Amino acid sequence: MTAHELRAWAPDGLPEVVPGDDLVALVVSALRADPEPSHALVDGDVVVVTSKVVSKAEGRVVAADDREQAITDETVRVVATREHPGGVTRIVENRLGLVMAAAGVDASNTPEGTVLLLPVDPDASARALRAGLRAAFGVRVGVLVTDTAGRPWRQGVTDLTIGAAGVQVLDDLRGQVDTFGRALTMTVAAVADEVASAAELVKGKASGRPVAVVRGVGHLVTDDDGPGARVLVRTGPDDMFHQGSDEAYAQGWKDALAGDGAPGASR
Amino acid sequence: MTAHELRAWAPDGLPEVVPGDDLVALVVSALRADPEPSHALVDGDVVVVTSKVVSKAEGRVVAADDREQAITDETVRVVATREHPGGVTRIVENRLGLVMAAAGVDASNTPEGTVLLLPVDPDASARALRAGLRAAFGVRVGVLVTDTAGRPWRQGVTDLTIGAAGVQVLDDLRGQVDTFGRALTMTVAAVADEVASAAELVKGKASGRPVAVVRGVGHLVTDDDGPGARVLVRTGPDDMFHQGSDEAYAQGWKDALAGDGAPGASR
Repeated sequence: MTAHELRAWAPDGLPEVVPGDDLVALVVSALRADPEPSHALVDGDVVVVTSKVVSKAEGRVVAADDREQAITDETVRVVATREHPGGVTRIVENRLGLVMAAAGVDASNTPEGTVLLLPVDPDASARALRAGLRAAFGVRVGVLVTDTAGRPWRQGVTDLTIGAAGVQVLDDLRGQVDTFGRALTMTVAAVADEVASAAELVKGKASGRPVAVVRGVGHLVTDDDGPGARVLVRTGPDDMFHQGSDEAYAQGWKDALAGDGAPGASR
Repeated sequence: MTAHELRAWAPDGLPEVVPGDDLVALVVSALRADPEPSHALVDGDVVVVTSKVVSKAEGRVVAADDREQAITDETVRVVATREHPGGVTRIVENRLGLVMAAAGVDASNTPEGTVLLLPVDPDASARALRAGLRAAFGVRVGVLVTDTAGRPWRQGVTDLTIGAAGVQVLDDLRGQVDTFGRALTMTVAAVADEVASAAELVKGKASGRPVAVVRGVGHLVTDDDGPGARVLVRTGPDDMFHQGSDEAYAQGWKDALAGDGAPGASR
């Protein structure tokens, strides 16, 4: 590998993860079983784990007939809803600050009759995995826990980072200049989400490979566990899309007739 | 390389691109100059080019004092605006269907006193690059033209695909099943945006390396040029965030007082 080069690979899948499993041991086994010598973990590698297997090991499985209740329980704030023939899609902010359809509650990749909630604390899960990988392999790696989500204005889903340990998730380029010596205007790169995307390309969605290793981004790997993925969340006053357009419109209408609020102040 | 493995690298940068330059020739030269033997292009590689150099070759440079006018000219529809101490940020849908701050008009990586517009037709630019690469190297590669954008609810910017040729930009998994035999719920992956993100990790923003090669996603490379990146755009009736919350709220308020419209119908 040269500088400005990246490699990512996904070792053969884990056995089916069930509640109470030792996820660290399973991930370590999967990495050890990789027959390719160059895949042995080295300092600066980033290990990317799909949140589904973290959730399963943590026992975050509930009966499918509680799905709507599970979404409600995970919801801090409803952002937008949309009726469709199969029911109602709820885009919500969940307790992790993530804005996702169905609060991130997932009905695929689980046994029939069950749905899967997101991990309780994905940053803590990432930290535990990192400590376990260091203990097993004696290397300083970063760990990302990822999930899949849709995005406004773009077709298709991409993976993003919902838990992190030992990875600088945002690369702050403020103070750096471009090749003309002008300050960079797009100053903070969400590098952890880009690593999550690269990892997804090798893991795939139907391949049963929930773990990937990304090599070549060692400049993002830190000694400390760091602040985790929570700093990737942008909600609050900064959020220009804190309500769906229909919801905000309806609220404005209602407030106008009630004599409350003021135009231009949707909260 | 094994299956389920990806490599990405960014060869040394191009010379500074100026209007009228033959971008195909510059990219071919940069790829030819790469001293690493394993970096020679092969069938199935995807060549990712930052839109900035495409724009420059196409002469999409305008005087900086026309910046606000340039944004207006590129705008099809204003989605949201936000005042801040330095002026007003406009999030708009541009003529390519992309929803971006400042319509994608960029003030970095250009000579002082100028700003850069997006390419006129990034899909056409990608097709031309692809044809040129095939002629030069005799291989069937895909080409992506990428740009950098922010996202609702997430800190930091990521790269995404705004032009494509010979790459299946959406990977439609409908009909596939997970390891439990259940239909996948997240059914369409925006793989071209994930490739753009992987490429950005090796190109960087301040390194003067506008070209990357991604190897290992050959299953996405097609014989035909295909529909391009336009199919990644999701605007129209499907778009639950076609207006910023404040804008939709104000519209609802106004319509209520005018006796127009109806609650819940923001357009």
